[in-house]
Amino acid sequence: MALLLTAIFGAPEEWRKLIAAEMPDVDVRIWPGTGDPADIEVAAVAGLPRGKLKSFPNLRLIVSLTAGIDMLLGDPDLPAVPIVRAADPDGDVMIDEFALLHVLRHHREMPAFALAQQKGEWLPIKPKHAHERPVGVMGLGAIGLSVAQTLARHGFDVAGWVRSPRQADGIAIFHGSEQLSAFLARSEIVINLLPLTPETKGILNAATFNQLPKGASVINLGRGPHVAEVDLMAALDSGHLAAATLDVFPIEPLPKDSSLWRHPKITITPHASRRIYPGNLAPRVCDAIRRLQSGAPLQHQVDRKRGY
Amino acid sequence: MALLLTAIFGAPEEWRKLIAAEMPDVDVRIWPGTGDPADIEVAAVAGLPRGKLKSFPNLRLIVSLTAGIDMLLGDPDLPAVPIVRAADPDGDVMIDEFALLHVLRHHREMPAFALAQQKGEWLPIKPKHAHERPVGVMGLGAIGLSVAQTLARHGFDVAGWVRSPRQADGIAIFHGSEQLSAFLARSEIVINLLPLTPETKGILNAATFNQLPKGASVINLGRGPHVAEVDLMAALDSGHLAAATLDVFPIEPLPKDSSLWRHPKITITPHASRRIYPGNLAPRVCDAIRRLQSGAPLQHQVDRKRGY
Repeated sequence: MALLLTAIFGAPEEWRKLIAAEMPDVDVRIWPGTGDPADIEVAAVAGLPRGKLKSFPNLRLIVSLTAGIDMLLGDPDLPAVPIVRAADPDGDVMIDEFALLHVLRHHREMPAFALAQQKGEWLPIKPKHAHERPVGVMGLGAIGLSVAQTLARHGFDVAGWVRSPRQADGIAIFHGSEQLSAFLARSEIVINLLPLTPETKGILNAATFNQLPKGASVINLGRGPHVAEVDLMAALDSGHLAAATLDVFPIEPLPKDSSLWRHPKITITPHASRRIYPGNLAPRVCDAIRRLQSGAPLQHQVDRKRGY
Repeated sequence: MALLLTAIFGAPEEWRKLIAAEMPDVDVRIWPGTGDPADIEVAAVAGLPRGKLKSFPNLRLIVSLTAGIDMLLGDPDLPAVPIVRAADPDGDVMIDEFALLHVLRHHREMPAFALAQQKGEWLPIKPKHAHERPVGVMGLGAIGLSVAQTLARHGFDVAGWVRSPRQADGIAIFHGSEQLSAFLARSEIVINLLPLTPETKGILNAATFNQLPKGASVINLGRGPHVAEVDLMAALDSGHLAAATLDVFPIEPLPKDSSLWRHPKITITPHASRRIYPGNLAPRVCDAIRRLQSGAPLQHQVDRKRGY
């Protein structure tokens, strides 16, 4: 069995060693060294150019090395084989931690203090308790749910916005487009962890910003195209929004000439929410191959129709 | 019984209402309106000018409204009556949260990202897991211990530095001047929560900074005079220290002309670690008065000789 692997996270030798330790019989081909395309049965990929996957006639399974699969689904020639996710299907303490950090930063007024520091200004702000701070989490997939639970455990008054109704302990659930306004109206800090789909693209725009309470903050840990950047800057400039933190962008690295870099109320982080590394991913790739070979049910499979 | 109160946190009327609700017989005098000084038996104070307390001949108890009592003990004419602390004797979730926020900021490289953003520079840094990050807490009084436990619960590899040996679950203890070097050498992030005493004044200086590992960060939530500011800026400028966060200063508000404001590797917050408010303090003042009246043992009493 040949496995095609894009080794964009970690060195090729590290991948080979990790896969060989668990599955010595697997013939690992590191992109772009595919060898005979007819050998490839499984492709574990991230950032593969569009149209490439269709060149493997015997492909049986695609393993996405990233949690976001919008790039993969954007391939018009994507073969009709199952897609599973290798990346942290059960959430990730590093993203929980990063989300908590940024919610705490906004909650404890760090963006306002940073602006005041630039002016040499002592700005006493009466801090709120976490339970006095309504935080909204957009998207309760494995990652979003884990983040929402971390924030709730920390004491925040947490609501989640999801596509379809559901239950989640300690988290107020709002669902569908009909409850988005109510969700936004009660959220002083909004953190986006939605998958990128045609429905969610540009969902953080002038209309949604206007429905947030005055002085609210926005944190985007989802995908760059979720945010209408011009609308965001306008909402910050008008004073309706207090501050924003962006970790993801339509083009990464964020181009040097982007005006986001220089906006005084925007904090930029370089897609730093977690560490993706072979030691973490290889066991999950092997597990997917084992399930394929044994006929066991696949796990963390992507629903192509929903788009996540 | 007359109580002298400095109402620097909260409005006088709020204090009067809160004390009256619990102890209607107590005659509340708000500084500087002392009335007959001979009436005053208890003084619940913060920021009272030096030399004033000696003017109350019948004073029996001093209640410090702040956790730090260095200013009080600095009064050369301080009457020889017991001193107890009203302010959050059992730690405070707001300080825990603020400490966690700042440790997370340094842990997740926010100071480096902020400097990179100023230059429009995408700076990918492989994040560490919390358990890979040794954090050192200086001072394990009620507040320091609570912070250390919060950090340990979060997954950090936590050590505490204290005056005398003791046990604390999940926290490596270093004690006394003979173990300070070893404590510093293993701490990539140091957070100071020591009381200010003649022994701890200026303890964060060139010598201690040099014993920290290269690239370490320093967070001061203790008292301003703990830090030798010139040494701190030199250690940051040399690149030995990566970044620092200061929440407390020898003079507050920090004077506009302080060069700390403009140092690119220093984050300034305006003594923002917690909210001190009458609703929180008044019950503790009343409890101290009740104990004094009934002869019950005083709680959270200050040891004048140790200085905290």
